[in-house]
Order: sequence, then structure tokens, then C-alpha cells
Amino acid sequence: MSSTDLHMVVPAGGSGTRLWPLSRAANPKFLHALTGTDRSLLQATFDRLAPLCTPERLLVVTGTAHATSVIRQLPELPERNILVEPFARDSCAAIALAAAVIERRSPGAVMASFAADHLITNTPAFAETVRHAVEGAAEGRLMTIGITPTRPETGYGYLQLSKPAEAGTVQTVLEFKEKPSHEVATRYVESGHYLWNASMFLWRTDVFLAELAARRPDVHDPIRRIAAAWDGDEQEAVLAQEWPTIPKVAVEYAVMEPAAAEGKVGTVPGDFGWHDIGDFETLGELLGKEIEGGARVVHVTPDTPPVVVIDGDGVLAVPCGPRVIATLGVADLIVVDTADAVLVCHRDRAQDIKKLTEILRERGHAAHV
Amino acid sequence: MSSTDLHMVVPAGGSGTRLWPLSRAANPKFLHALTGTDRSLLQATFDRLAPLCTPERLLVVTGTAHATSVIRQLPELPERNILVEPFARDSCAAIALAAAVIERRSPGAVMASFAADHLITNTPAFAETVRHAVEGAAEGRLMTIGITPTRPETGYGYLQLSKPAEAGTVQTVLEFKEKPSHEVATRYVESGHYLWNASMFLWRTDVFLAELAARRPDVHDPIRRIAAAWDGDEQEAVLAQEWPTIPKVAVEYAVMEPAAAEGKVGTVPGDFGWHDIGDFETLGELLGKEIEGGARVVHVTPDTPPVVVIDGDGVLAVPCGPRVIATLGVADLIVVDTADAVLVCHRDRAQDIKKLTEILRERGHAAHV
Repeated sequence: MSSTDLHMVVPAGGSGTRLWPLSRAANPKFLHALTGTDRSLLQATFDRLAPLCTPERLLVVTGTAHATSVIRQLPELPERNILVEPFARDSCAAIALAAAVIERRSPGAVMASFAADHLITNTPAFAETVRHAVEGAAEGRLMTIGITPTRPETGYGYLQLSKPAEAGTVQTVLEFKEKPSHEVATRYVESGHYLWNASMFLWRTDVFLAELAARRPDVHDPIRRIAAAWDGDEQEAVLAQEWPTIPKVAVEYAVMEPAAAEGKVGTVPGDFGWHDIGDFETLGELLGKEIEGGARVVHVTPDTPPVVVIDGDGVLAVPCGPRVIATLGVADLIVVDTADAVLVCHRDRAQDIKKLTEILRERGHAAHV
Repeated sequence: MSSTDLHMVVPAGGSGTRLWPLSRAANPKFLHALTGTDRSLLQATFDRLAPLCTPERLLVVTGTAHATSVIRQLPELPERNILVEPFARDSCAAIALAAAVIERRSPGAVMASFAADHLITNTPAFAETVRHAVEGAAEGRLMTIGITPTRPETGYGYLQLSKPAEAGTVQTVLEFKEKPSHEVATRYVESGHYLWNASMFLWRTDVFLAELAARRPDVHDPIRRIAAAWDGDEQEAVLAQEWPTIPKVAVEYAVMEPAAAEGKVGTVPGDFGWHDIGDFETLGELLGKEIEGGARVVHVTPDTPPVVVIDGDGVLAVPCGPRVIATLGVADLIVVDTADAVLVCHRDRAQDIKKLTEILRERGHAAHV
């Protein structure tokens, strides 16, 4: 494999409702500087991937609502490498569109797809793992990178291996497992046969598209017609005709799970400080700085507005505006202040924040979600 | 007594730190619509008093910081009836200035002074009580209106009577009592011999100024020189020279307590739905509206921004801006959202909010206080 054959894809979608009101439908978490630097998660993903392939071979797939922000945040990215979906059709459509466009531009290329909103702290180890996975992909396997689990997490899916995970080697994935109970997750982690599914996929575009054609022609055929028209005069017309017909389905469900059952899916275990900043607990653990009163603060903007906490063990404050946040005699709370919403949430209830956003929508306040 | 001899005075000062961040040094509570209508506490005080004396006989004493707001909120008030102090010198200076100016304009008039930030729900009963107290004042007594206590409140001072309080009669005040312990307050209330001191004073201006001259010439003499120059070309020069020399002292301490010891102070018990909206607990009790999740909300602006509470027994939300307030799984909290500060406070700690404002000042954020 020469490096010129490797293309990178970043699906940039999803609103991150468990991070409301910081993350919004109109301003999702991948656009925020949740990285400990002034770079957004999307920009940090770009910084990590571009050196592995050059910006000319890096594609971002995003929605109409975020295209402008993506374009502004990534000035180095060629315009033709931003694929804008008319509206979301789940991960299979997004990834298949990228695969079909790449296949047209560079037949038989290897593509690697990574989420826009994950944080990775050990970039050299990540690059090394990608190299191993690219080798497996070049040989014709549908590859994934599985994350070595560090705790019995119930918020992720798992990859089941035939033998204990071994770093730097391509191993066969027996099965994709849904999010488990705590008991099951504990068994998974203790066995050493399971990795976290972080939706990192690597494959030859011709191999993936052949699998998709066989299993899901309802996704494959319109995507191929769209890709054939891409970059041409008919792009918009074909997109308008074909896109609405594509069913909403996750790529795991449409392709990877059935392919794994046939022994076609490989993985390379990864251990490079991977974090899905999916909720405020994780955000606080990763980026929180201790302040007085037993509290922590996460600064997600260049401003550092005053935060004053008196007797606030376990308080996590996330100021996103110029306002003072002051707490007095409250413990184990998450307080998030944004331009148009204030959230006060018990830490034990951080997983239920989505409910609040649903209620706001029901009551006609979708603009705040 | 003809009604033309009665003048009303409203000292409009104090920042209401226990209502931070709603009440501010720059925007104190008397300017806010904490009345259940769109009228501010100051405007509601004006509405209650002006019919008892006409706007030409109603004076407001306020500081330089709030003069503009006071003038804008009370367009009916003649300009010459707004007395602006260069800086605060406590209640004795403010009330003595008003007394001396009234005495110059209408010698021997009766003046009645009422705080700008109290809420009274039964205006006819209030007017009736004032009429009785004015009679006592016209006869030469230093009068106060004492509030019939409804609970053993430890946040107010008390007036001790020689016999059980009797509505509609002038009674002698034996002593002014400081804020008591809960035990002492319970004894006071059970005895029937005590009323709350709500700093409502009524007297002939010549009588009050004579008492002040005898007891506190250090306040009386400069105030008289200032009043002599008031409304004239020398007003500013005399004010600049005399005002800084006036000691800071409360009118209770300077005049009323020693006068009571000499049997010169009378009171009329009042029972007209009086409330000192001094903290968020009181605000919530008086103006809180029940919403879902066991919570209450106080709307203090014409906007009614969305408040969403899930599992929030005893939550009190005070939205003062257009932002959503959302709480999840938190109980017995006060959440106040203003343009430049967010407060999250346990209800048991509402009396300590002043501490937060002190810390903000110490850290150089006085603009937020």
C-alpha cells in the first residue's frame, strides 16, 4: 500500500443531546472546542487524520445545517471534499456516499472512517493502529478498530473476538454486540475477548460497495447513481430524486453485522487514549479543572467567566457565555450556562438530559434544542 | 389635620444582596416588578401613597446611582421632589434631609416615611392605619406603624408595647428590640405585646427635627444647612461641603430608641398584608406559581421564558431573561438566571447569598454584584 491510496472519511453528524444545552441540533458537539485546546473536536479530528492521507484525500460528510460551520472550521479542506447530505439518512447512507464518491475518484482505494466527535490523546499510537488496520483492509477485509475497554461501560456496543485481543494484529470479529447490561459488560471486560465498537471502519471501497450491493441494494443503488452524478451538472437533480428514497439504517446493522457472521470482518485492537465525549460526566473527567469548594469547571470558550462555588462538593460548572455562575450549598450538580439556556442537573441524572430536550420540542421550543 | 399638611417620604436605597443576582447594587430590588403586576416595588409604593397626599407632597430620597431609574419609573413625581444623596449615609441622614426640606417648604407639616421595597396587599386597611397614625403625629408624638406579627420571624426588629396590641389605637412603644433568636421571637409573638418594626415613621417635621437637634447635632446641623440651601444656587456647593461630615447612623438608633425610652414614641398596630421581599424564600411564597415537577416559578419580567423541571420538588426558578431554565433531578434549589449571572443555591442557604457577592467583589467582579 502506498499512502496515496488511503482516503479518510469523517461523518460529522449527530447533535449530542446528552450534552444539551452545550451541544445543540444547530451547534452540535463536534463544532465545540471540547479538546482542552482552542480546536474543536472536528478540527482535532482533521489534525489527527490529515497527516495520514493529505487534505486532498480527506472527506467530510455532513448535513446542510452544519456545512457552513464545517467549511469555516476546516479552511484547508478542498471544497469538493465536503459532501453535504440534504438531510440525515443514518450512518450507512453517509458512509456509502463517501465510499462511492471515493471509488469513482480512485477506484480500489482504501477508505478509513472516523467519527468527528471523538477525542484521542495518543496520536502516534493511533496512527500505528491505523497502519495495521489499513493492511487488513488492503487484503480485502472489512476492518474496524476496536478500543481496548478500560471499564465495564454500558453506553457502547462491543466487538466479540475469537481469542483474547492482541495489540498490533488483525483479528477476526465474531459478532457485533449491542450495548450490554452492567453485569454482561463486566463479563465481557474480564474475558479479554471483547473490544468497544467506536465506529471506526476501514475497507477497500470496491469491497465495501460489493457487500452493500449484495445486502442492501435499496441503499447501494441510489448511492451509486448519486455518486455517478457527483461533481457534475446533474448532481443536485439526482440527489433530489434519489436521496429521499434511501432507508435510514446504521452501517453496523446493514453491512458489518451480517458480514461478521460470514467471517469477513477483522479488527485491530486499539489503545490510544480514546474518548467519546458523550455526556457531562466524561467532559468533566477529561477537561474539568478543580476550583474551590470541591467543584470542577470546564471552560469550552476562550472566555473564562467567573465561577464562584461555596460548599459545592462534586459540582461541575460549564460556563459557555460571559455570565457569572455562582453556586451555594449544592452538591453533585451539573450547571451549564449557554446563550439561551441554563441547565441544572443532578449528576446521577446526566443520562436523562435527552428527556428535557424532548419536552422542550413538545412545547414548541425547538429553537432551544 | 387637613390632608394638605401630610407629606409622604420614600427612602429608596439598599441593594437587597439576599436577592442577588436579581437585585443589584446598580439595579436594586425596589426597581423590579416584584409585585405580581408590571409595576415595580417603587411604583407600587407610589401608587399606594400618592392618593393619601397628592404627588406634589410625595418625596423620594435616593442615591446618584438610581436617580435616573427613579425619575423614569415615576414620571408623575415633580422633579423637585426627588432628593438625590451624593452617597449613602444610612437612614437617619436620608430621613432627616426629607424632614428638613419639608419643614422649609411647609413648616409644621406631618411627614410619613415608608420603604420603597415593601409589598402591601390590603391598601384600604393600610390607608386607615396611616390615618390613625397621622393623628398621633399631629398631636406631637414620634409615631411608627408596627406590623402585627404572623410568625416568630428572626429577621426583623420588634416594638415592645406596654399592653397587648389593639388595632386602630395609638399605643406607646416602650422599647425597640433588635432581631431576636427564634426562642425569644416565639415568646414575643405569644405575648401579644410586640409588633414588627417595618421602619414606618410619622411625625411633625418640627417635632422630629427638635429631637434630632437635641440628640444628634452632628446629623441635624449639617442637614439643616443643606436644607436651607436646597432648591437654590448654593445647593450643590453646600451639599458637597456638609454631606461628607454626616455620620452613618440608623434613625432607630439615633432618635427613635432614645425617644421611646422617654415615652415619646407611639405606634398604631397594622394588619394590612405587609411583606418585606427580602429573600428568595419570601419571593417564592408571595409570587411563585406552581409548575410541573413540584416546582414554582416567579416571573419578574413581562417575558415568560420556558422553564422545564423534571423531578424537582421544592425548586424555585426565577427567570429574568429570555433563556430556558431546565432542571433535572434536583430538589429544594433556587435557580436565578439574569443577563450576567446565574445563581444555583440550596434553599437552606438563601440567607448566605451575601457571601457570594462579597467573594465576587473581592475577586474584582464588582460589576456583577
